[in-house]
Amino acid sequence: MSADVQLQQRYHRVRDATTRLSEPLSPEDQQLQSMANASPTKWHLAHTSWFFETFLLAQTPSYHPFDEAFSQLFNSYYNTVGAAYARPRRGLLSRPGAARVLRYRETIDAHIDALFRRGALTPQQRDIIILGLNHEQQHQELLLTDIKHALAQNPTFPAYLPATASTTSAAVEAPLRWHSFDGGMVDIGHHGDSFCFDNERPRHRTYLPPFTLASRLVTCADWQAFIRDGGYTRHALWLSDGWDWVQRHGITAPLYWTNRGSDTAIFTLHGLQPLHPHQPVVHISYFEADAYARWANARLPREAELEVAARGLPLDGNFVDAAVLHPAAAPVSAAAHHAPQQLYGDCWEWTQSSYSAYPGYRPPAGALGEYNGKFMCNQHVLRGGSCVTPRSHMRPSYRNFFHATARWQFSGVRLARDV
Amino acid sequence: MSADVQLQQRYHRVRDATTRLSEPLSPEDQQLQSMANASPTKWHLAHTSWFFETFLLAQTPSYHPFDEAFSQLFNSYYNTVGAAYARPRRGLLSRPGAARVLRYRETIDAHIDALFRRGALTPQQRDIIILGLNHEQQHQELLLTDIKHALAQNPTFPAYLPATASTTSAAVEAPLRWHSFDGGMVDIGHHGDSFCFDNERPRHRTYLPPFTLASRLVTCADWQAFIRDGGYTRHALWLSDGWDWVQRHGITAPLYWTNRGSDTAIFTLHGLQPLHPHQPVVHISYFEADAYARWANARLPREAELEVAARGLPLDGNFVDAAVLHPAAAPVSAAAHHAPQQLYGDCWEWTQSSYSAYPGYRPPAGALGEYNGKFMCNQHVLRGGSCVTPRSHMRPSYRNFFHATARWQFSGVRLARDV
Amino acid sequence: MSADVQLQQRYHRVRDATTRLSEPLSPEDQQLQSMANASPTKWHLAHTSWFFETFLLAQTPSYHPFDEAFSQLFNSYYNTVGAAYARPRRGLLSRPGAARVLRYRETIDAHIDALFRRGALTPQQRDIIILGLNHEQQHQELLLTDIKHALAQNPTFPAYLPATASTTSAAVEAPLRWHSFDGGMVDIGHHGDSFCFDNERPRHRTYLPPFTLASRLVTCADWQAFIRDGGYTRHALWLSDGWDWVQRHGITAPLYWTNRGSDTAIFTLHGLQPLHPHQPVVHISYFEADAYARWANARLPREAELEVAARGLPLDGNFVDAAVLHPAAAPVSAAAHHAPQQLYGDCWEWTQSSYSAYPGYRPPAGALGEYNGKFMCNQHVLRGGSCVTPRSHMRPSYRNFFHATARWQFSGVRLARDV
Amino acid sequence: MSADVQLQQRYHRVRDATTRLSEPLSPEDQQLQSMANASPTKWHLAHTSWFFETFLLAQTPSYHPFDEAFSQLFNSYYNTVGAAYARPRRGLLSRPGAARVLRYRETIDAHIDALFRRGALTPQQRDIIILGLNHEQQHQELLLTDIKHALAQNPTFPAYLPATASTTSAAVEAPLRWHSFDGGMVDIGHHGDSFCFDNERPRHRTYLPPFTLASRLVTCADWQAFIRDGGYTRHALWLSDGWDWVQRHGITAPLYWTNRGSDTAIFTLHGLQPLHPHQPVVHISYFEADAYARWANARLPREAELEVAARGLPLDGNFVDAAVLHPAAAPVSAAAHHAPQQLYGDCWEWTQSSYSAYPGYRPPAGALGEYNGKFMCNQHVLRGGSCVTPRSHMRPSYRNFFHATARWQFSGVRLARDV
Repeated sequence: MSADVQLQQRYHRVRDATTRLSEPLSPEDQQLQSMANASPTKWHLAHTSWFFETFLLAQTPSYHPFDEAFSQLFNSYYNTVGAAYARPRRGLLSRPGAARVLRYRETIDAHIDALFRRGALTPQQRDIIILGLNHEQQHQELLLTDIKHALAQNPTFPAYLPATASTTSAAVEAPLRWHSFDGGMVDIGHHGDSFCFDNERPRHRTYLPPFTLASRLVTCADWQAFIRDGGYTRHALWLSDGWDWVQRHGITAPLYWTNRGSDTAIFTLHGLQPLHPHQPVVHISYFEADAYARWANARLPREAELEVAARGLPLDGNFVDAAVLHPAAAPVSAAAHHAPQQLYGDCWEWTQSSYSAYPGYRPPAGALGEYNGKFMCNQHVLRGGSCVTPRSHMRPSYRNFFHATARWQFSGVRLARDV
Repeated sequence: MSADVQLQQRYHRVRDATTRLSEPLSPEDQQLQSMANASPTKWHLAHTSWFFETFLLAQTPSYHPFDEAFSQLFNSYYNTVGAAYARPRRGLLSRPGAARVLRYRETIDAHIDALFRRGALTPQQRDIIILGLNHEQQHQELLLTDIKHALAQNPTFPAYLPATASTTSAAVEAPLRWHSFDGGMVDIGHHGDSFCFDNERPRHRTYLPPFTLASRLVTCADWQAFIRDGGYTRHALWLSDGWDWVQRHGITAPLYWTNRGSDTAIFTLHGLQPLHPHQPVVHISYFEADAYARWANARLPREAELEVAARGLPLDGNFVDAAVLHPAAAPVSAAAHHAPQQLYGDCWEWTQSSYSAYPGYRPPAGALGEYNGKFMCNQHVLRGGSCVTPRSHMRPSYRNFFHATARWQFSGVRLARDV
Repeated sequence: MSADVQLQQRYHRVRDATTRLSEPLSPEDQQLQSMANASPTKWHLAHTSWFFETFLLAQTPSYHPFDEAFSQLFNSYYNTVGAAYARPRRGLLSRPGAARVLRYRETIDAHIDALFRRGALTPQQRDIIILGLNHEQQHQELLLTDIKHALAQNPTFPAYLPATASTTSAAVEAPLRWHSFDGGMVDIGHHGDSFCFDNERPRHRTYLPPFTLASRLVTCADWQAFIRDGGYTRHALWLSDGWDWVQRHGITAPLYWTNRGSDTAIFTLHGLQPLHPHQPVVHISYFEADAYARWANARLPREAELEVAARGLPLDGNFVDAAVLHPAAAPVSAAAHHAPQQLYGDCWEWTQSSYSAYPGYRPPAGALGEYNGKFMCNQHVLRGGSCVTPRSHMRPSYRNFFHATARWQFSGVRLARDV
Repeated sequence: MSADVQLQQRYHRVRDATTRLSEPLSPEDQQLQSMANASPTKWHLAHTSWFFETFLLAQTPSYHPFDEAFSQLFNSYYNTVGAAYARPRRGLLSRPGAARVLRYRETIDAHIDALFRRGALTPQQRDIIILGLNHEQQHQELLLTDIKHALAQNPTFPAYLPATASTTSAAVEAPLRWHSFDGGMVDIGHHGDSFCFDNERPRHRTYLPPFTLASRLVTCADWQAFIRDGGYTRHALWLSDGWDWVQRHGITAPLYWTNRGSDTAIFTLHGLQPLHPHQPVVHISYFEADAYARWANARLPREAELEVAARGLPLDGNFVDAAVLHPAAAPVSAAAHHAPQQLYGDCWEWTQSSYSAYPGYRPPAGALGEYNGKFMCNQHVLRGGSCVTPRSHMRPSYRNFFHATARWQFSGVRLARDV
């Protein structure tokens, strides 16, 4: 099978997966935008198509756009290619409706198929298709975290999908062990020719002191102990900006935790569910992760530490492919004696590393350079992927990044310590 | 035909009219909320049903609510009957969807029909039905002004309905005449047994100095002259709070006016349309109306003046029944020699009268008293109804009221002068 | 003694009174601005001088301004005469310092004296001096209410002046009586040639239904009963905008009330003082006044009602001349059988009347017209003067006005009822 | 001379220097607070005394505080030792006045002298005194940057001190050279027993790729070229958050630049001065520094790079001791061939390094641990000291830190490049 046939098959796998994610949602659901940082499902469906239309199809002079208005409506932030409709107002677009957006997707796909059929893709075109598919996988994750946030605003707590047996909690808690690593001079960043984002390059040397990592993620039961011990009310545990944030917003628990009488329930993509104590805690801010680590007499990992620890391990875990859509309790397993568990999947792990350029980093030229480099300020790196990340999207060198206050992603915490 | 049969027929006429107003709108359209003061179409459809369910059906112990959650979701502001879902967040409710809301309406209607069939409505029940129908007609108007505001946020300027010939502009301007009124001791407010809102009562005496009223509404051409003469940039024309408002929001024209090259286009319920110079200017704030009047060496009418002028005239005009959905140019007619035109319909007319209690006013007891009295502060009265008001909803004594900054209603201006 | 000699003497009486009010305050005190609506003492001292300089002295071509910069720094809002330094930033001006502002006052006074010495004031100049003195008396009151608000921000609760015996509370409560008035056709507004503000004219006829007025102001003890009865927590008592205000700001008592253990203390110009139950309640918003009246099964007076009631009575009361600087308990006196007490002085009385133009009102031409007319929106009229109003500034027709949320003035409430 | 005698002499040198900085300022000037991040001069004078009183004197049971209220009024953010008066409201404290704050300082100094006289300071007491003096030197710098910001709000642009000859600009521009450094494994952080802040420890190894540094700071002339080339209007030059900031605040030049006709003037501590092209640009945000570096085809230095470059050089430069109070043009000197100039003094140099904990960092226990560690989020490190930093306060390992939007410090930029 030729490389282009493989690429075409992969194209359809990824594109179809996006559409499938939207299927449980009504046209009204797909319209929802619950905060400026989140986008409607419909917008994700259209924007990922706009990406292929703008950066691939529209480069051909003979191309007639599906709809002239879409170049503005579904641009995200690529200033180079024109004005974008204001992000916080995406929920105000009832038109195009969901059905028309699906036709847009199909039309773009048909054009791309025609391109494949004509053969003779240029290397640059191939690169854009590959970038577009990776871009689309990022939006698959956002589609789920954004709709979760939107549905959570409804006091009836609607489910994205009904719960299944696979979301049942483990009955036994995996004990917390510490795994030691030597550190020293290490090479960090992507190597080889396979795809990665620009921010994973260049591979470069860095020096790491020895360190230890916890064998599993911090759990809901751990977090309840933190709360019982006054974790949210003791300023000494918090960064100054974090303490301001806790006070100003009256934060007393992770996002989506809610009291039902004396019990805590958690809003999930399967609706409101009882808290399962051994599941990883999730939807916490950097500030909360950092305060918890201080309370636990530990610290957050550096991103290089997690890369070193993860890169020898098989790329397995609770990804979106498993259709669980929620972090799962760490298995009680002999494997935990040999290496940390849950380094891939379940939830993104906050690191203490500010998101910044690797030595020698240069963004690509042109509009596609407006991708990763311009966010290198006031964000922290998260590693490992989550229960809503596609498995094929993950790599040991993968760097996700969010502001310290962000909680609507599946973000959790693993402890680290100096030796 | 018995009074109850008539009432039942009227019930269905009003209820069906509401549903019909929603029919040109997709489920996504019906979801839109473009500002805190506006509500989604779907919410209007549900809330008007909630009104009958809450104040009529739920008074029967055997009644099972259509959906327990609706008592919160579709309460507007009746604190007496329980918590209300926060108004600015109504656009975040994708569920219930539009189809389910229609089933809700049908179910409520079936219950009401059963009530009629059982006969023996109490006088209090009849009063609530009549109040509910008048309440629903108010929401018919809001449904249209709210969706107009929502569709205006879309850069493609979608139409609620296509334009028809009836919206064509008059070719000739009706000349501005002044009609004199004697004033003196007059009785103001509703009299007789027919329905009116509590704020139109009690009928009471008041003293009016002599005054004159303009024969027609201020037109777009008039307004363009005001703009050309620096109307929006001369502080001396404006109230202090109005000048602050103009500066802070950069106001330079009525809402929905937009420049297309050297021409002005106006967003209407029929999409973007060329400015018709002889149509009444509309979607202006109290501040703009007041500044215009000062510029024109005139003043805004008092509400009693408009009531005195209107009450001898036939209750005809450009109401929603005409399906024009936009103010129309005043006809050039001999009738204009005898009485002011356009006192009913076309657009609400700002008055200089603060919305306040008539002497001896008392709100009804209980939840239904939370209707008009509690808004008697910092609002001004508007009179006469608009092109989206049902004709059967209007009366000479009718008092509408909005804050001085409100522009999304069909609000315009007629000049008055002291003698 | 000639009219001009009298005017000159009056000029110095008023100007000296302003300066004297600033004497208990340090340069740092005089710098304080605690909110956008309030101004520093130093600014009041300078602005009242700027008024004479701008509208009188600077009309003479040969005049050299004291300081070119002052024309901007000490303009309040007279757009006609040039740009004004932004009101909320007045507290950021350390220079000119207090000493230099006093020299500014003295220099202006010397120029005015020279003007008087030259004789031959024009009638227009006399009018401006008289207006300037009335304007200055308004700022005397604001100087005291503004510094009270500023000192209240200091957790050590500093006193403007030490308390004296005269502030001791009455031991006995004056009983509440109701005085009946016939109403009917009455003439309202100032008449005669003596000075009044433009908004008190033209005198005009209006019709008043019969009404009754309470014999005294609502007291702190009355207000405590309102609080105990849940006054601040029962939405049914409040205007809609008022309820929003109470909720948003967490209002539970009048401004300056503070809990000391189980007792209530009140911050006054004499520092923190125990609550005296029979003193009038003061520093309440329109919303609070209105809610109290509803709770008391009464209503707020109309401004014409208070004018009718007050105009037959001697213009006596607890004004700033008494140097008490706080409302005093109503005396228990036989006079209370014949007429309402406390109609003058003690505190401004909120009326239900929106501040609006009298029929036929026209503001003066030019900059001095930017005085009263441009505030005729979203404010309510208060009547009667307060313990910090100069007695010579008051008249039966005097109209003060503030927004419904304003609490830093000495504003209180007298009940009225329909007959 | 014993160590304690030396310490006592140093105590008075530092304390007197603070008081001297306040001497050109009137009581009104000392009251000014122009933004939440800045504090009044008077507050700095009191807070630095509060530090010694709270952490040293009040540890003695027999100590009677100078004023009970000061423990709240002059606490900055030490939650451990009690409530602090809200930072944004410090400008609302007219009392204590400037004179009383000076008495407070003198009283504290007398107590400290008594402590020295009694002899037998404990090592812990000595450490607190040394920490307190370093803390006070930080506030000396803030006192000047805060009053500069406050005086800049006055449209008359008052000078803190008159200009002197020493602020005259160099006539010739120092050419820009590039100095190469090998990098490799380096030790970073303070070593030895002398004082440093906790955040400069522990000294640790890190790996640096080879790099080059510019021989001098970016100048005003350089910045004018950036502006002329559209630097503030080309989104591609800016970080995403930086572009938002530029747009939202309408930024078009460094803070304190102002247009006078066709010329640019700059507000300095000597009032408004003409722009001197060869002086370093200053009062720029991280966002501006980063955009400039991208425009110049360079990057910002890492903090370790500046530490490596600076530590071999004599600790000389334009510090507050020189009394110039503004950055000076780089001298045209042969020395520039051998090492970068201006690494100490003139202005703080933004680095691309986020302010974070060195490996193994632990804050001290107790209240004094609330000093540096809790700010380790969303700030960037600046290096080298400025024209308002005391020379004796500086070290090669010194880490200053501010949010990316901060501009009121003397912050500038030196370019770096990868080799």
